Amino acid sequence: MKIAVDGMGGDYAPGAVVEGLTIALNDFPTYEFVLVGHARKLAFYLEKYGIADNPRVRVVHAESVCEMSDPSAISLRAKRDSSITVCAKLLKEHEVDAMITPGHTGATVAATKVLVRTLPGIDRPALAASLPSQVGRFLLIDAGANPDCTPINLAQFAVMGEIYAQYLFKEARPRVGLLSVGGEDIKGKTLTKEVFHLLDKSPMNFVGNVEADTVFEGCADVLISDGFAGNVMLKGIEGLAKSTMVWLKRVLTRNALRVFGAMLAKNAFRELRAYGDGDDVGGAPLLGINGICVIGHGSSSPKAVRNAIRVAGECVEFGLNDKIVARLNEAHYTTSELEEYFAAESKN
Amino acid sequence: MKIAVDGMGGDYAPGAVVEGLTIALNDFPTYEFVLVGHARKLAFYLEKYGIADNPRVRVVHAESVCEMSDPSAISLRAKRDSSITVCAKLLKEHEVDAMITPGHTGATVAATKVLVRTLPGIDRPALAASLPSQVGRFLLIDAGANPDCTPINLAQFAVMGEIYAQYLFKEARPRVGLLSVGGEDIKGKTLTKEVFHLLDKSPMNFVGNVEADTVFEGCADVLISDGFAGNVMLKGIEGLAKSTMVWLKRVLTRNALRVFGAMLAKNAFRELRAYGDGDDVGGAPLLGINGICVIGHGSSSPKAVRNAIRVAGECVEFGLNDKIVARLNEAHYTTSELEEYFAAESKN
Repeated sequence: MKIAVDGMGGDYAPGAVVEGLTIALNDFPTYEFVLVGHARKLAFYLEKYGIADNPRVRVVHAESVCEMSDPSAISLRAKRDSSITVCAKLLKEHEVDAMITPGHTGATVAATKVLVRTLPGIDRPALAASLPSQVGRFLLIDAGANPDCTPINLAQFAVMGEIYAQYLFKEARPRVGLLSVGGEDIKGKTLTKEVFHLLDKSPMNFVGNVEADTVFEGCADVLISDGFAGNVMLKGIEGLAKSTMVWLKRVLTRNALRVFGAMLAKNAFRELRAYGDGDDVGGAPLLGINGICVIGHGSSSPKAVRNAIRVAGECVEFGLNDKIVARLNEAHYTTSELEEYFAAESKN
Repeated sequence: MKIAVDGMGGDYAPGAVVEGLTIALNDFPTYEFVLVGHARKLAFYLEKYGIADNPRVRVVHAESVCEMSDPSAISLRAKRDSSITVCAKLLKEHEVDAMITPGHTGATVAATKVLVRTLPGIDRPALAASLPSQVGRFLLIDAGANPDCTPINLAQFAVMGEIYAQYLFKEARPRVGLLSVGGEDIKGKTLTKEVFHLLDKSPMNFVGNVEADTVFEGCADVLISDGFAGNVMLKGIEGLAKSTMVWLKRVLTRNALRVFGAMLAKNAFRELRAYGDGDDVGGAPLLGINGICVIGHGSSSPKAVRNAIRVAGECVEFGLNDKIVARLNEAHYTTSELEEYFAAESKN
């Protein structure tokens, strides 16, 4: 197992990434790593964490970094020497089995889509974010890779999500829901109405339209969405979670009695915070790329980087992409068949 | 001031609606009401709350109710005698100045759009939901009236939102943001990219793309969105808020010390809950209808109903619709001018 790690991605790079890599070297003793980034900047942290001479870490220099304010296409244009682009090239040339980056999602999607390409039968990759519900977790797909989607894109996301959920939740028939604005099939936007009828006829365990509130009660294992609405949902709940912690602190410090009460229960608040903590999840796989690519949060901690590496390794060992291709080759799932379906539908 | 109240809308109707009306009769002594719904069912609660003989309440019978599982068009088709449709007819015939309903949003939009019609210069109405940020509140427009939108629709939402925010926040130049998936103008979906360039050239205080997480830090007073993404954001944060309370209870009851600490601070948790409480807000005005219509949450309490009535009265007194029409008549805001703009853009 060889994994490329983008050493320059995220708000706390390269320090947090190198520290996370150090943990992974210990936890996954058979894995080898290619650390990609500015060699001189990385060298300082490799020294600091005592892995400068580790034979399982090879450093590959990348001159530039995709900043969050850069457009997505930058990884293919002005910054073709960026750490993200170099990681994607290593993946393309099969020098690594997987790549992870806590960096620019759009730039990673652009670089992998163009350089590594999508799996046969998949038109667009999709980001699979793991979110907490009241009873467990669910996958939100696409969490932001494709702002504009066709019904065929969403149907392919559903196929990929079903397979990933089978692995992640150990469920033979994970419940696949469609993110919409009403529970009934007649509700939604043009896009979701078309996708509804398609998924409803498919052999998967389709539970219909699911609203963004009820999904937290645990009514679906996989929530399918276009990348715009999916990202709005992801960011919206991240924003509310952060605000809730601000509000909680505000109301708990309003008088001495509350402060004392909160002190007695302080471990509870630590556990509450852990529900929304992305550190255990590590990162979201970019499903549908012809190679394994895991994208972490921009604010990834060393623990998150270590877990993104774990997710990447698991996806490789599970044979995720082979399973997706095999399923797409089954009836009713290939792009051409979906296209025929829509052509027939539009004639009616 | 005469306001039509849908007595059958919401999960706790008619009891909660009639109780809320009772509070409003006391708080707004100059207002008169038309209570719409099943006369026999309403009579029981009118007796119960002692307002059966109140001369400021007239009951208008409506035979049916739009259920949450009904399609939106039901208010115009199979249930043309529903309480929502009857309210809309009263508004159309100027028998009332405003209507409020804690009922079916889609059915209300359909009934008012067709019967009451939109304001001159407005193609689609938009739901203006008020949400809490870390520093105050912001308006999310459209929170769910139109799942599919054009750039022109969103530009009109921005005009309406700016005026409503001027009133609500007492700000001469409220900050108008566009809900998107990245802060930079090059990010978003096709729809938002087109709207961005339009709003950017407008005289309003446009602060650009705003993400669903940063808006909670208070970077915009008005957040413009299509009704699908807006509703996903609204429902997503509602779902997370509910889950957070479930998780908080779970972690605070894990041992006796925590339970004791939580008891000492229990008023803090009540105040925390109040941040997300829609009761004070009451309801969201459906902006752009040629009459004032306020839609409450399906789970509206009597207090929420009272406050929806307050919002409706305030919108009438403020002269919201006259102000919207006047602004649209100014340069760069009429539909035909917007259309010219897009025609010119598409030629480039």
